[in-house]
Amino acid sequence: MERAREIEHIANYTSILTSRTLNEMTGCDVYIKCENFQRGGAFKFRGAYNAISQLTDEEKDRGIITHSSGNHAQAVAYVGKISGIKTTIVMPDNAPDVKVDATRGYGAEIVFSEATIESRENACNKLIDEHGYTLIHPYDNLNVIIGAATASVELISETGPLDYIIAPIGGGGLISGTSSYAKLSGKVKYVIGAEPELANDAYLSFKKGEIQPQQTPVTIADGLRTMLSPLTFSFIKEHVDEIITVSETEIVEAMKFLWERMKIVIEPSSATVLSALIKGLSDGQIKTDSKIGLIISGGNVDLEGFFDNIKKQIVKN
Amino acid sequence: MERAREIEHIANYTSILTSRTLNEMTGCDVYIKCENFQRGGAFKFRGAYNAISQLTDEEKDRGIITHSSGNHAQAVAYVGKISGIKTTIVMPDNAPDVKVDATRGYGAEIVFSEATIESRENACNKLIDEHGYTLIHPYDNLNVIIGAATASVELISETGPLDYIIAPIGGGGLISGTSSYAKLSGKVKYVIGAEPELANDAYLSFKKGEIQPQQTPVTIADGLRTMLSPLTFSFIKEHVDEIITVSETEIVEAMKFLWERMKIVIEPSSATVLSALIKGLSDGQIKTDSKIGLIISGGNVDLEGFFDNIKKQIVKN
Repeated sequence: MERAREIEHIANYTSILTSRTLNEMTGCDVYIKCENFQRGGAFKFRGAYNAISQLTDEEKDRGIITHSSGNHAQAVAYVGKISGIKTTIVMPDNAPDVKVDATRGYGAEIVFSEATIESRENACNKLIDEHGYTLIHPYDNLNVIIGAATASVELISETGPLDYIIAPIGGGGLISGTSSYAKLSGKVKYVIGAEPELANDAYLSFKKGEIQPQQTPVTIADGLRTMLSPLTFSFIKEHVDEIITVSETEIVEAMKFLWERMKIVIEPSSATVLSALIKGLSDGQIKTDSKIGLIISGGNVDLEGFFDNIKKQIVKN
Repeated sequence: MERAREIEHIANYTSILTSRTLNEMTGCDVYIKCENFQRGGAFKFRGAYNAISQLTDEEKDRGIITHSSGNHAQAVAYVGKISGIKTTIVMPDNAPDVKVDATRGYGAEIVFSEATIESRENACNKLIDEHGYTLIHPYDNLNVIIGAATASVELISETGPLDYIIAPIGGGGLISGTSSYAKLSGKVKYVIGAEPELANDAYLSFKKGEIQPQQTPVTIADGLRTMLSPLTFSFIKEHVDEIITVSETEIVEAMKFLWERMKIVIEPSSATVLSALIKGLSDGQIKTDSKIGLIISGGNVDLEGFFDNIKKQIVKN
């Protein structure tokens, strides 16, 4: 974690919010780390920056590549831009225009592939072979994981020691960084992962002690549809105390609470941590009267439809 | 402002956000004071608390009343609840259930009237005559105005002196408190009010030097449909440098930016301050390369439809 402070400095320091209503509702002191306020709208900037900044000059000259249609794509494109590194992003040909445009807006070259994960990886590997690009994997990369840990470093530097910290699990990068810092620093008693029931590969892997494949997940939490890698699974086995899975309805209810009562725009993936807190308290996996940190991973949601409706309602003047 | 610190302590201290994108877009250093994070979701708590806490014991025993269907109603009901004071709110009979329920949820008695302002005032005055309630007017009340000023006190205590501060104008309570503190403290050079073109009574009054009646306003900025009182107009004349009016389209565009890029849920009334900043820069009323504070007044918007749509999309599990 020796580089944590530098990454912290380069990433946006993100606010920590609290809510009397939430504290009364849970009987706990809850601290919400708002990575939706991070550059690019998600924690992904931290890992992308850390991984890319540690490349050799020769690697930087050859350029970087990743395959993603989500927050990691934008983070890599953004870091590529501010670091002056040629950046290529392989995106599925059914990616929404808004995401393609945002990524291209950071100056990245977009290469389209078919929507399957195999097509994306093949397209990516082909370009790596041809051009010598360095792959910045979204989570199967130790420097990406260390970068992600800096959100917890900031959180705990403000709150002091915590009883619990809860982070969502997709590919496992965020929970790997979060749990490593939490446990190695000795500042957090229990680390809990939050996962959708409909994308519960980490939960099943955790319970069986070996990686279980992700079936084709349909969860609304689009950032959590990916599956663990051996690297992230090793961190989870070592440092995570429990994984709590939540239903789609629970995710949407928690998301609604965070928008309506806390006035923050967060994506469904992030809402899982609040759902897991509420469920864990009700099932006894989390003790009441605790001091709890929630990592809100991002706030990138499509608001076009919402604002199109509002625009239809206004009186022209 | 001697009571400012106490009110500050009792109100939620609200975060100040910044955005690289916004700073690049405007060529200014912009500080956003997030009163959408305030208790009750709007700055109104500050004024309601200050006014109500200064009543005599006898007045508190008799109870308080106000007429409003908006943020002030909920603020008064909330302060009534935490102060143990009987609270009556006169609401129009067409007020949305969500607002009636929220106000009733704080333990206030709701009395319905017809939707006209005359009916509401008559119903209110009748109850005052019968029960001796004290009216807590939403803005025509010096203690409400002083309470509203504490948002600026907090903002400037963090940012230091500002070139400009921009606040929305509805009845004028927020701009009265903001501009008084800004100018009397000597910490802000220019105070600008933001108002919808479709509810421009303050702009017209400011330009003519006497109060102009508000026509029936249809602006989407529902918090700004009220008109100035002689008290608030006197503060505006004394301390406000300019009023910038903005179109409905400009309001929605600014609202979209604040939701999409800054990830905060804010109401249309609050978006006017960003619209006014953009317009003022473009028209030369605001100089680029300035240090600017924006008071985001609140975040109470109806999200039921948005989440109903999301609920329809999720897969049941």
